Amino acid sequence: MPRKIILDCDPGHDDAVAIMLALASPELEVLGITTTYGNVGLERTTRNALVVQEVIGTSVGVYPGADRPLVRDRISAEAVHGISGLEGPALPQPRQQPRDKHAVHFIIESVLAHPGEVTLVPVGALTNLALAMRLEPRIVPAIREVVLMGGSIDVGNWSPSAEFNILCDPHAAKIVFEAGVPLVMMGLNLTHQTPATPERVARFRALSTRAGAFTAELLEFFQIHHQQRYGFPGAPIHDACAVAYLLEPALFKTGHYHVEIEANEGLAFGRTVCDYWRVTGKAPNCEVGLEVNAEGFYELLLERIGRYS
Amino acid sequence: MPRKIILDCDPGHDDAVAIMLALASPELEVLGITTTYGNVGLERTTRNALVVQEVIGTSVGVYPGADRPLVRDRISAEAVHGISGLEGPALPQPRQQPRDKHAVHFIIESVLAHPGEVTLVPVGALTNLALAMRLEPRIVPAIREVVLMGGSIDVGNWSPSAEFNILCDPHAAKIVFEAGVPLVMMGLNLTHQTPATPERVARFRALSTRAGAFTAELLEFFQIHHQQRYGFPGAPIHDACAVAYLLEPALFKTGHYHVEIEANEGLAFGRTVCDYWRVTGKAPNCEVGLEVNAEGFYELLLERIGRYS
Amino acid sequence: MPRKIILDCDPGHDDAVAIMLALASPELEVLGITTTYGNVGLERTTRNALVVQEVIGTSVGVYPGADRPLVRDRISAEAVHGISGLEGPALPQPRQQPRDKHAVHFIIESVLAHPGEVTLVPVGALTNLALAMRLEPRIVPAIREVVLMGGSIDVGNWSPSAEFNILCDPHAAKIVFEAGVPLVMMGLNLTHQTPATPERVARFRALSTRAGAFTAELLEFFQIHHQQRYGFPGAPIHDACAVAYLLEPALFKTGHYHVEIEANEGLAFGRTVCDYWRVTGKAPNCEVGLEVNAEGFYELLLERIGRYS
Amino acid sequence: MPRKIILDCDPGHDDAVAIMLALASPELEVLGITTTYGNVGLERTTRNALVVQEVIGTSVGVYPGADRPLVRDRISAEAVHGISGLEGPALPQPRQQPRDKHAVHFIIESVLAHPGEVTLVPVGALTNLALAMRLEPRIVPAIREVVLMGGSIDVGNWSPSAEFNILCDPHAAKIVFEAGVPLVMMGLNLTHQTPATPERVARFRALSTRAGAFTAELLEFFQIHHQQRYGFPGAPIHDACAVAYLLEPALFKTGHYHVEIEANEGLAFGRTVCDYWRVTGKAPNCEVGLEVNAEGFYELLLERIGRYS
Repeated sequence: MPRKIILDCDPGHDDAVAIMLALASPELEVLGITTTYGNVGLERTTRNALVVQEVIGTSVGVYPGADRPLVRDRISAEAVHGISGLEGPALPQPRQQPRDKHAVHFIIESVLAHPGEVTLVPVGALTNLALAMRLEPRIVPAIREVVLMGGSIDVGNWSPSAEFNILCDPHAAKIVFEAGVPLVMMGLNLTHQTPATPERVARFRALSTRAGAFTAELLEFFQIHHQQRYGFPGAPIHDACAVAYLLEPALFKTGHYHVEIEANEGLAFGRTVCDYWRVTGKAPNCEVGLEVNAEGFYELLLERIGRYS
Repeated sequence: MPRKIILDCDPGHDDAVAIMLALASPELEVLGITTTYGNVGLERTTRNALVVQEVIGTSVGVYPGADRPLVRDRISAEAVHGISGLEGPALPQPRQQPRDKHAVHFIIESVLAHPGEVTLVPVGALTNLALAMRLEPRIVPAIREVVLMGGSIDVGNWSPSAEFNILCDPHAAKIVFEAGVPLVMMGLNLTHQTPATPERVARFRALSTRAGAFTAELLEFFQIHHQQRYGFPGAPIHDACAVAYLLEPALFKTGHYHVEIEANEGLAFGRTVCDYWRVTGKAPNCEVGLEVNAEGFYELLLERIGRYS
Repeated sequence: MPRKIILDCDPGHDDAVAIMLALASPELEVLGITTTYGNVGLERTTRNALVVQEVIGTSVGVYPGADRPLVRDRISAEAVHGISGLEGPALPQPRQQPRDKHAVHFIIESVLAHPGEVTLVPVGALTNLALAMRLEPRIVPAIREVVLMGGSIDVGNWSPSAEFNILCDPHAAKIVFEAGVPLVMMGLNLTHQTPATPERVARFRALSTRAGAFTAELLEFFQIHHQQRYGFPGAPIHDACAVAYLLEPALFKTGHYHVEIEANEGLAFGRTVCDYWRVTGKAPNCEVGLEVNAEGFYELLLERIGRYS
Repeated sequence: MPRKIILDCDPGHDDAVAIMLALASPELEVLGITTTYGNVGLERTTRNALVVQEVIGTSVGVYPGADRPLVRDRISAEAVHGISGLEGPALPQPRQQPRDKHAVHFIIESVLAHPGEVTLVPVGALTNLALAMRLEPRIVPAIREVVLMGGSIDVGNWSPSAEFNILCDPHAAKIVFEAGVPLVMMGLNLTHQTPATPERVARFRALSTRAGAFTAELLEFFQIHHQQRYGFPGAPIHDACAVAYLLEPALFKTGHYHVEIEANEGLAFGRTVCDYWRVTGKAPNCEVGLEVNAEGFYELLLERIGRYS
């Protein structure tokens, strides 16, 4: 029986790849795609979730969620993803419309409808999850697992301490990390191990499919920023790591640690503080991604995206 | 035409008086009573809102809301209000049931149904309001006014810096204070001017009604803590000040200031930082209660509670 | 036997009055005047301590100290005190020179030379005291008492939370308040009760002495800011309150509280957090000035300043 | 001409090796050894600096300094270094006495006596340096360079965020890092690359000298904690890295970054926040050690310690 997931995202280039990976995988039953502000504003991320589905020919429901963080001011990443959030390829006009239900309600209803079965896969800000947990606390024990992309156990990318998704809403992240749900975190320390090198991009292009070309064009644009800022040989496909973990956990080396969110303003605002050397005596609450078999990750991606005609 | 209000409360002795004052006043149309955790847990505060209505014979809908703060851990005040939250008088079994709609949804629906007309009167933690504002941002410009009991521009009562309601959920308070809605704050600096002295309590008893006796017994119990901790001549009826302001604003002297919430942990966690001397250059966002005509306040209370048979 | 004090100051108009009051009082033996940055820079405050003595004809040693705070960036108050720090009266050229010993060393040597006898009277930033306590911890148990002007138990004057002297160096204040020395604090909540009204200023002028005229001219300039910012009927003579307390404690009503300094950055940075209602359970560490007999305070000032020819 | 240095330390096992390395190296003129609280209390660290010199037969002046941090409470590391701070080898009775001058004064006098020539090498808490900079600001532009052991650009060892030396006194660290002096930081991310494996320890023992045996015994004891806590193959010789950098900089790969100290309490208290990806736009202020040639480092150590008879 496929694993029920809700993909909570803010597409975004790597979100787009995560969507394609999830929807191509029979091991997963994507109950819905919920969207949030983040890389760009909510209206665009919601549209982009539909755009990606237009490209790959799927029609999973897209549920728009929070348009701003709980407490702090909104930040965004047009500098990385372009104005549209999916700069690079030509974007088709989506025929599907967003569903007329708030992401928070969709999450609550789905989890309560399938207690213990739904895995939440947030790859953007954690605002939707946090709102759902506070609006309906009964979902917390009913969530199967949260597998997220966000944070870092070494340096950040949006501040010296913090990664973008968590920094978008540190208070929401604190709510989720302290909720007591099974938690897997794929942070920058892991996702930076997955550069989409020119050779890898070429393999997507060589699929000779619309999805393959779309992916290649996304990754080429995405690399512009990563080359300039980090000197990476290719753009990391951050968000797809969370989905890949659900499909092939053996590709990942993880460790079980106590991870706490700094939600007070200051130099570490939004940091995922990981007790790597177990000096606090606090019980582990998070499985943290440490290493990924990048070659295996790309083989998985190519095989799955290659399934789209 | 009466002013539409939603009373958001956590009864609580002074909340009970606020409910009685509001429901006795034809100038106000109480659309509903929403409840939150606070003085005691959500289940008890919800029940207490029904208990008070049982005493006074009203049947306004009671909508249960948040059972915990957004980010921080929950605090409560059984030491002040007793285990039930309404210790003192004998409490009748309420015949009415809570409504089957979440406070947050009731607030959202009410405000959107009457744009520009609904005044929110929170006299407990601000969690329900904050959740509503984030779940449905369109309510923010549609709220007529928020008139709250909470905070202090001098010392606090639950920490040296903070008042209980705001300290219950400083993050929610920050959301509300920064929302840009018209805001009136009745803090401890004002409410402490309203001690229910034995002479005043006697006047409630002298009403010789069930509501009068109930009020007198509430205030006598409530004074136990206020005598011990503060040496006050009587318990302040904090929450009723917010309702009284809607009925007779001329009883109050207020000033327009910039008030900011400290939502970072530390010695001032939960403080309503008021720019009394206008040293920050920040524009005022809050009408702050400074002085109240306590005699007039009690005359109003007695006249209104005296209307109950 | 007169009480040995060291007056640690940053003159400043009210510091000047404090110096005049101290040096006119036989009950006090002023071992030295130590200076610090604050109202204006160190070079000017040091010169001003000499200028005041030139006016009154005294020659107590002036020892320059810290020119900046321990950790934070330096702030100053030229907007209040003018560029020179003593704007208003014509300032004579001082004949005396500053002593060639650092304030911190003078404090250490004086306290160790007279264990249990020296009262420190800081009326500016607490940097000199803090440095002395850390450079020579043995002085801490040897200090008789610290009687300071600074802080506030209600609103601040340099931020909504903080008073200028403490905000100048919150870390130094934290060191001093946590040192375990007997501590008396005269904060804004008290000093604002001492406005130098035109009638009071006239009484200084009517002394018909150089010191009287000098005082009157200082207070007239000092009132410009206090009228504009606060609408006060006269400038408070903050710093003189600390000296007056040593001379006539009966003029003051005080209370014994736990006072803690917020030295973390944020809305309460530099606040003297006073546990007025004793909610923390922490033992009192500070005698806090609550009320002053303003008429008696001015009588004392006039009588003492009237002693200068 | 040898480079003038002051070694500021809290011996401590790795401090002891740093002392031996420095005093054996003709490229360095060790003006003095200043001590501070840290691994153990000041009295013991001071004694230990003398003990090490007793072992190696040197007599550089030892100047005791701060016995506690500027603002925070004192922490110590007896769990790592044993009660004496140098647990492991038999410790001789030192014949030399500490000098009768405070470390802070020795630093100030030395720097002012040789402007532009003195390199400060703090390998413990930064309290002495910070106090010297505030007591005599003129030393700041006269310091040639500060080469320190402390901090980490990835995880900490005493909290998830912070390294022990910096955590001992984050406020002092903030003062030093913001002083504008040329700064080199050897943090845990580098020093953890220098495990004293059994094979390396054996090479010290094989020197067949007193200093060699002493070093071997220190490193064997030091490894107990590092094995238990970190599972390292040997104890890192943290402090010697700072000295080695002065002797053979080619052993080190460094990068120039902006490093800021979190001195506000919270999850990152005491963290050296390094802008590794240059996202803040702040100018670099610190040369940060990234990699060390561990084999070369041990060759240097062995050759130099081998010079002691």
